[in-house]
Amino acid sequence: MNLQLTASPLDLRLRDSFRIARGTQTVAENVLVEIRYGDRTGRGEAAPSPFYGESRATVLAILPRLAEVLGPDPFAIQAAWRGMARMIGGNFAAKAAVETALFDLVAQLADQPHWRLWGLDAAACPPTSFTIGLDTPERMAEKARAATEFPILKVKVGVADDVARVRAVRAARPEAMLRLDANGGWNPKEAVRRLNELAPLGIELIEQPVEATDYDGLRFVREHAPMPVFADESCVRLEDVPRLAGRVDGIVVKLAKCGGLRPARAIMSAAHAHDLRCMLGCMIESSLGISALANLAPNADLCDLDGHLLIDDDPFVGVTVEQGRLTLSDQPGLGAKPRR
Amino acid sequence: MNLQLTASPLDLRLRDSFRIARGTQTVAENVLVEIRYGDRTGRGEAAPSPFYGESRATVLAILPRLAEVLGPDPFAIQAAWRGMARMIGGNFAAKAAVETALFDLVAQLADQPHWRLWGLDAAACPPTSFTIGLDTPERMAEKARAATEFPILKVKVGVADDVARVRAVRAARPEAMLRLDANGGWNPKEAVRRLNELAPLGIELIEQPVEATDYDGLRFVREHAPMPVFADESCVRLEDVPRLAGRVDGIVVKLAKCGGLRPARAIMSAAHAHDLRCMLGCMIESSLGISALANLAPNADLCDLDGHLLIDDDPFVGVTVEQGRLTLSDQPGLGAKPRR
Repeated sequence: MNLQLTASPLDLRLRDSFRIARGTQTVAENVLVEIRYGDRTGRGEAAPSPFYGESRATVLAILPRLAEVLGPDPFAIQAAWRGMARMIGGNFAAKAAVETALFDLVAQLADQPHWRLWGLDAAACPPTSFTIGLDTPERMAEKARAATEFPILKVKVGVADDVARVRAVRAARPEAMLRLDANGGWNPKEAVRRLNELAPLGIELIEQPVEATDYDGLRFVREHAPMPVFADESCVRLEDVPRLAGRVDGIVVKLAKCGGLRPARAIMSAAHAHDLRCMLGCMIESSLGISALANLAPNADLCDLDGHLLIDDDPFVGVTVEQGRLTLSDQPGLGAKPRR
Repeated sequence: MNLQLTASPLDLRLRDSFRIARGTQTVAENVLVEIRYGDRTGRGEAAPSPFYGESRATVLAILPRLAEVLGPDPFAIQAAWRGMARMIGGNFAAKAAVETALFDLVAQLADQPHWRLWGLDAAACPPTSFTIGLDTPERMAEKARAATEFPILKVKVGVADDVARVRAVRAARPEAMLRLDANGGWNPKEAVRRLNELAPLGIELIEQPVEATDYDGLRFVREHAPMPVFADESCVRLEDVPRLAGRVDGIVVKLAKCGGLRPARAIMSAAHAHDLRCMLGCMIESSLGISALANLAPNADLCDLDGHLLIDDDPFVGVTVEQGRLTLSDQPGLGAKPRR
């Protein structure tokens, strides 16, 4: 009998409404995928983003079709990937949920954590940043102070007056490492001007200063701003990596962009071939999605895996974070289980 | 207690002496690595080549040092890789033997074939070619006729009179797919002249027409010869892949060049990011080494995994080949066991 897939809505309520250059979010409307095999259940999370053409509605609409490619064998992940790719393009958050649910089953059946099956060293995970969304400078400073447990903050920018906001965060946390993320909110000249203004505050890197399709803008910023430039929205598919080489210093890998652990690994390898640094990133996700990608953290150079820290009532338990340090689960599978 | 490694010579006698553009071989002086863990034994094979700076003597000399990086846990492969890389550069055949022995243990402990743990589809393996070494045109034709079971032949060229040799093989096997491998034996203009002369015989691809370091020569051949160009000796490390993009159509991945399954996978991903095709290749190896790399064949575009078919008394049993089609082992581990 073929594997059966069930999909159900997963509402994640944000502790604070979360604002980035593109908009504001109070609830993440994710989807939980479960695939049963004997007495085991493999689980995956879809965190759809309208920016990449998905919503909860599209995920719930396509999952029953994607499920048709599943055969009886949870180990047949390559075949599932090919089947899903033939079925429909894009829809990578939905595909990632299916693929990670299968990898969860495989590692459970092998009775090992996924990262161990791949020979990875859990002690090699880079620390994760904690994200400070856009707000008034005062509120952002307050949030930064409340996050003293995190030595690395990722500060959202890309709107008017963001320089004042970053100054407020820096004043609140003089010792923290600060990363900036503009989510494509600047034009190239604006980016260079602001980054040069912000540089004296001590900035580790800038993520996606210009819009996703502006590859030459990325290069312009890299050539004229004094800190490393990372591509997030500009880096979705494996083929994007070579085009980004020479234009940025690093890339951001997310399950919801690339479609699963297999493509994530491929993108990381391609990036390292070009001496690009790899940051693992996330959407607003529960510990289910975060734990899945965290299995690859030992191969990453930087981590921004804090989606589960921004929500109330995380329905899953998995990777834990202390002082920004990730501790991968030592349980068989991808490492997350329902909190109950 | 830390994992203990034992190394022993593995002499592989060739059925016929094997000549390529660089020289002639009658015995492959390989090395068997065994790592014990409880009642399991993980095995790996080193197939050193002087071209890449290794011999049996260097492998046997460095293995005891490499073994020092092993801890008590066979799953700690990333840590072993980092330890070996810090210990000494190069020595990739020796490192591959250690790394594959560890992956063999991991998959045995997970009670699954390696390819299944990685979700790969055994039915997706491309067929392998069978190699016809350099000899008189008559003898090469004879060997080609004796290999009728193989629909794809890889014919060694790169010496004087090789056009006559390929003609003889083509006459003996009018229906076969022919690949050529010059092992760097031509200069670029010579390569283009001969390949244009050979093209009417029907040639699928040319491997390494010019010497390893002549990247511009590869591009010149690609631009002026009528068949796809693959890089073998020119493609050793992950960082070579981006430099080869635009200069060749594909690359050849071998354990003895890159140092193991983990780097092999990374190189394949980087190549695919550049739309380069990947051929899995080998040295003269027993079924131990061939079976190890064959686990990645479902991700490859072409295979040249025939080293074990060129020797007498293969001391291992593993992947089988019929009509050029690979059948991966369904046993736990990398798929090879001693023949006894």
